Amino acid sequence: MSTNIRFLQGNEACVEGAIYAGLDFFAGYPITPSTEVAEQLSIRLPQKGGKFIQMEDEIASMGAIIGASLTGHKVMTATSGPGFSLMQEALGYAIMAEIPCVIVNVQRGGPSTGNPTHVSQGDVNQARWGTHGDHSIVTMTASNNQDVFAVTVDAFNIAETYRTPVILLFDEIVGHMRERLIVPEPGEIPLVERLRTSVKGGVDYHPYLPREDGRLPMSDFGGVHRYNVTGLFHDMWGFPSNNPQVVHGLLRHLVDKIENNTNQIARYKEFYLEDAECVLISYGSSARAARHVVESRRPRGERFGLLELQTLWPFPEIIVREKCADAKFVVVVEMNMGQVLHSVKAAVNDPEKVFLANRIDGVFITDLDIRNILRLIRGKGV
Amino acid sequence: MSTNIRFLQGNEACVEGAIYAGLDFFAGYPITPSTEVAEQLSIRLPQKGGKFIQMEDEIASMGAIIGASLTGHKVMTATSGPGFSLMQEALGYAIMAEIPCVIVNVQRGGPSTGNPTHVSQGDVNQARWGTHGDHSIVTMTASNNQDVFAVTVDAFNIAETYRTPVILLFDEIVGHMRERLIVPEPGEIPLVERLRTSVKGGVDYHPYLPREDGRLPMSDFGGVHRYNVTGLFHDMWGFPSNNPQVVHGLLRHLVDKIENNTNQIARYKEFYLEDAECVLISYGSSARAARHVVESRRPRGERFGLLELQTLWPFPEIIVREKCADAKFVVVVEMNMGQVLHSVKAAVNDPEKVFLANRIDGVFITDLDIRNILRLIRGKGV
Amino acid sequence: MSTNIRFLQGNEACVEGAIYAGLDFFAGYPITPSTEVAEQLSIRLPQKGGKFIQMEDEIASMGAIIGASLTGHKVMTATSGPGFSLMQEALGYAIMAEIPCVIVNVQRGGPSTGNPTHVSQGDVNQARWGTHGDHSIVTMTASNNQDVFAVTVDAFNIAETYRTPVILLFDEIVGHMRERLIVPEPGEIPLVERLRTSVKGGVDYHPYLPREDGRLPMSDFGGVHRYNVTGLFHDMWGFPSNNPQVVHGLLRHLVDKIENNTNQIARYKEFYLEDAECVLISYGSSARAARHVVESRRPRGERFGLLELQTLWPFPEIIVREKCADAKFVVVVEMNMGQVLHSVKAAVNDPEKVFLANRIDGVFITDLDIRNILRLIRGKGV
Amino acid sequence: MSTNIRFLQGNEACVEGAIYAGLDFFAGYPITPSTEVAEQLSIRLPQKGGKFIQMEDEIASMGAIIGASLTGHKVMTATSGPGFSLMQEALGYAIMAEIPCVIVNVQRGGPSTGNPTHVSQGDVNQARWGTHGDHSIVTMTASNNQDVFAVTVDAFNIAETYRTPVILLFDEIVGHMRERLIVPEPGEIPLVERLRTSVKGGVDYHPYLPREDGRLPMSDFGGVHRYNVTGLFHDMWGFPSNNPQVVHGLLRHLVDKIENNTNQIARYKEFYLEDAECVLISYGSSARAARHVVESRRPRGERFGLLELQTLWPFPEIIVREKCADAKFVVVVEMNMGQVLHSVKAAVNDPEKVFLANRIDGVFITDLDIRNILRLIRGKGV
Repeated sequence: MSTNIRFLQGNEACVEGAIYAGLDFFAGYPITPSTEVAEQLSIRLPQKGGKFIQMEDEIASMGAIIGASLTGHKVMTATSGPGFSLMQEALGYAIMAEIPCVIVNVQRGGPSTGNPTHVSQGDVNQARWGTHGDHSIVTMTASNNQDVFAVTVDAFNIAETYRTPVILLFDEIVGHMRERLIVPEPGEIPLVERLRTSVKGGVDYHPYLPREDGRLPMSDFGGVHRYNVTGLFHDMWGFPSNNPQVVHGLLRHLVDKIENNTNQIARYKEFYLEDAECVLISYGSSARAARHVVESRRPRGERFGLLELQTLWPFPEIIVREKCADAKFVVVVEMNMGQVLHSVKAAVNDPEKVFLANRIDGVFITDLDIRNILRLIRGKGV
Repeated sequence: MSTNIRFLQGNEACVEGAIYAGLDFFAGYPITPSTEVAEQLSIRLPQKGGKFIQMEDEIASMGAIIGASLTGHKVMTATSGPGFSLMQEALGYAIMAEIPCVIVNVQRGGPSTGNPTHVSQGDVNQARWGTHGDHSIVTMTASNNQDVFAVTVDAFNIAETYRTPVILLFDEIVGHMRERLIVPEPGEIPLVERLRTSVKGGVDYHPYLPREDGRLPMSDFGGVHRYNVTGLFHDMWGFPSNNPQVVHGLLRHLVDKIENNTNQIARYKEFYLEDAECVLISYGSSARAARHVVESRRPRGERFGLLELQTLWPFPEIIVREKCADAKFVVVVEMNMGQVLHSVKAAVNDPEKVFLANRIDGVFITDLDIRNILRLIRGKGV
Repeated sequence: MSTNIRFLQGNEACVEGAIYAGLDFFAGYPITPSTEVAEQLSIRLPQKGGKFIQMEDEIASMGAIIGASLTGHKVMTATSGPGFSLMQEALGYAIMAEIPCVIVNVQRGGPSTGNPTHVSQGDVNQARWGTHGDHSIVTMTASNNQDVFAVTVDAFNIAETYRTPVILLFDEIVGHMRERLIVPEPGEIPLVERLRTSVKGGVDYHPYLPREDGRLPMSDFGGVHRYNVTGLFHDMWGFPSNNPQVVHGLLRHLVDKIENNTNQIARYKEFYLEDAECVLISYGSSARAARHVVESRRPRGERFGLLELQTLWPFPEIIVREKCADAKFVVVVEMNMGQVLHSVKAAVNDPEKVFLANRIDGVFITDLDIRNILRLIRGKGV
Repeated sequence: MSTNIRFLQGNEACVEGAIYAGLDFFAGYPITPSTEVAEQLSIRLPQKGGKFIQMEDEIASMGAIIGASLTGHKVMTATSGPGFSLMQEALGYAIMAEIPCVIVNVQRGGPSTGNPTHVSQGDVNQARWGTHGDHSIVTMTASNNQDVFAVTVDAFNIAETYRTPVILLFDEIVGHMRERLIVPEPGEIPLVERLRTSVKGGVDYHPYLPREDGRLPMSDFGGVHRYNVTGLFHDMWGFPSNNPQVVHGLLRHLVDKIENNTNQIARYKEFYLEDAECVLISYGSSARAARHVVESRRPRGERFGLLELQTLWPFPEIIVREKCADAKFVVVVEMNMGQVLHSVKAAVNDPEKVFLANRIDGVFITDLDIRNILRLIRGKGV
């Protein structure tokens, strides 16, 4: 086991995970509560021979990482809600052009500049639907430093595997909480490297022609092949097309490459679910409070269990349905007005057994908050 | 009845509705398939003494209309998907600061620059969730010129009533199709004018202190009162606050002022629903095809009905549930991968009876497309 | 209609009801928040030729009214929680000896001296089970002055009809709230007078030998008949017996005379129950807030209804079951930890659809409190 | 094993248990069928250096033990129904002020003076709800001398652990039946001693400020600290408060300290429950008859089982539900009109499978009585 033990913030655990995964280009613009990601990378990346660049705004940051990714780098940016809103147009470009990249959103309270220094989990649905048009997206989160590290490595692996942007949707508590991180040894977690084309220079390279296994090999832009990249619907050469079959085929491809791999992409943890009558579902920092509820009620003979989601999108519908099949109550614990709630309701067999335990005032939800809401849900009043 | 009969595109019908409603400031940046809105307003607004300004991009456009609205004007901008993505950050500001404004999105195929000259209805969920953080929003649409005019007037009335941005979510077919419009006489449709404060100059004006009826009187910015406007959570004076009670109260206010008035805001049409065994639900241009199906099948004794939604957000959940209560099948007809579909499934008592009839290739969905899909839904194969 | 319109507190409305019903003997010891009952009767009773006596404590008060009732008077005492606890032993005596009397408990927050000046509805189960041994009891309440008057008259009528103590269980808000009371004309509400024996003096009178209709005629104690009265199980002459058949028969009689007349004794009001999906059940002052919720949500298309209970014991089980048969949710609104809640759960077909909306902090529950709890119950979070 | 074997009444077994547990102050007023408790303690307590005092009535008895407990003693009183009714007001004070004390109620037939020399179990619900206001209470019982001894020791331990009154609810049969008792050696049953504060004299002592583990250390009243004790809602200094948060917090504390430890407090025995189709539930002397039924029917292949409850309050709802989960019939055997019956019905999944086998005439219920009722329940008539 690794002896590289660190005591640091979640934002720094994310940085360490990204470095471990091979990040070598970061562009960003500082914003609370994500700033430590950029700050730490401004130190760490040069040490490793990578590039750190502070851009003039979040739109430029997305442009920079998209370009750098195309030239062959593993790239990341980090922001919070307002910056994430500004990134939506370029995010759609990365989806359409199939650019591997990782976007960290350390959530604050929204909408607008909102509640910058306080916790929220209000950007879950924006992560899914923030850019225009049908599309699919991968979004991951975590509740502690060890998992922040792990999902960050995963994010880079998934970005390369599926040629897709991946969103890391942390929250202020996770980002700023200091706790232990055991940094794995190199090689302990497998890494997915860029799949580069085997087509030689001087031979036609089709940037959007899939291999037999469905993956699209890339060629470092500006290197030996000339090819076209566009945000328009396009054919296998990357040239624009509004041919209905091309449009239909590309849109289905963009969505299916992710939705058809939902179970592979799904990362979650479970606690005491085997015989749970009441299943709590949570993610990010609120999952810590939910876990405390479960572990403190079990000795009392109350059959609580916890499903902690680490992949939020594509929503692991089948897994959630199965885990909740025997529950009498399902309670989604989150710090928003019920965003994962809707996905859970759509997933389970009986939506009327799904309830929400939440806070929306910027104050961290505690086990006591959850238990008080559980009292009400179970008809026991205040 | 009015004798002012016009033959024009849907984009122009929108312009006429906006002028009728009292629009006197437009800022925008041209983009297909919405460009005719700006083009026509560059002619019409100066005629009426209003201001038209072409900005350098969509972010600037949102900034301009927010500022103009605060100074007392009825304002609008128009764009398509990529521009709408760029507007998400400023849209959140308008939600938080409670600025009345109207944003037209004439949808093209997405994501990214996508399929600019072809029809899609892929931005429905973005309209709801495009900006970060919990929030609520009003979004309306229409399927013909007369209704485009009417919902545009409605949009301005709702924006003023609830101090909220309102999104007009048209699509390329509706925007570019030419047909008749009977422009109502002045006064025929009631208008909601800006509610201005009765507080005199020199006396403290609280920009976010509601009247007894819940409405917030405004004061033309730059006029007799000085006050603060911010995208941060704020108190009744408009000054930032992260007090949990203030945050909770303001967020609930922003959402409740809209969600609690869902039935008042809901605008829809129904055709043959009384005894419908199969209820089609559609909106925008696809509702034209759906209506054709209903009207062509009724003479054959097939009990089809149509619920045409004109308000998409807040989703008229109770109305949809009631209209579908007795249906054996509910079929959502839309030109995307099933966005309103999700809302309908969440609304009805039995989600398993809800199906999707759609196209996603930029080609208009026809009654034949719908009927072929209906065959499959009813187990009759291709 | 009466033109005798008064503006007074609920405690005073109770006094007027008692006078109207024929009260002519009151003994009590003052305690907040019931004191105005005694205070006002110290003025009103002498005016009418009745007797008011302040006793040294609540035990003595019960002794005095039991004695006075036996001698032929209509009697009442009034107290709050601590005094009501002290009355429990003598209350059992009145039950066993079948003495008509009315005990007013204007509830404060308990247990113990608790929260004297604040509202609570915490004595509901004590009213049922406060004295030892199996027994039955009648308990009534009301939410406004007009109903306080009416149930007070009812209480005297029921006490005489069934030879039983009747508890009037008001609360601090109802007791102290000033509003209009229209005092009915004499004769407008029928009164039940003491049923006296037709047995002449010098002939054997059996104080516990029922007439054919089950009622037990009384003879004014100290008058023409000598007879025995005891708290022990007794035969028809009033003499002690531990004969199992006598014990069984008397206990069943004491319980059946009330339980078998549950529907006759049941007094309640209903609002919008015909098609209610969500039935609120409340009583006393909290029913005012519940009614406000119902009336404010109906215009929004939300199918709320209210069942306001005025008879709490014997619990109108069949009525509650029938009124709730078609409800999806039943929400008991009360200011305690869920006392009527238990009775409702036991009455309905599906106890899992019964929830509690409550406050326990001495602050009046408002429509907003109820609506917030309803949000949580319906899975919508805070 | 102890060789201290005695032959005595249940009332005396209770006395021996109390002495073993450390009782050193008893105040009471004699009443059938509890008198032997006082009688025996008037001999035993002085032998051990404790104090016995006969008070003028039951109210005074409660006052004396509350005061003595505060000064540091382990205290008890004993009575029957009528005396227990008189104690209700002071019992509420002990609940509110969190005074450890044990109250023995050896039940006779009620209501009122009732059936003094005959058995009944009619005070179960009074034990729960006899004092006014929301509250919680611990109530234990037993069916034989060995268990009477054991639950009496438990009662003192629980009183000290939770700072609460504990009621020992025996019945006339158990109190007066003579059988063997093996008195355990000192130390054989662990004792819970008074938790005293470590705060030194001259330093502020907060009588109602909990330690980290939730327990409230006491200081012998009249000793080194001066502090306030009241029956009003109070803050951590013991001073009255009607602050809603204080009221809410204290009431929840008073209830939660008991309800949240239901499983720890629950004491019960089970016989042949593993495969029981018909579960009998009983307690006190009636459990002896129920056990006889079970043991006499098993050899005939009838799958009867018995759950003997020793803790009646807080009602061990989860345990009862689980034990009855697989039963086809549940029959509550008790000598009243069905008091534990209600709690069992509320606890189990299917209340319709719960029946009552009872007597209410002062005669002990026999196995024959139960079997006759079982015939009827199973549709076999008399």
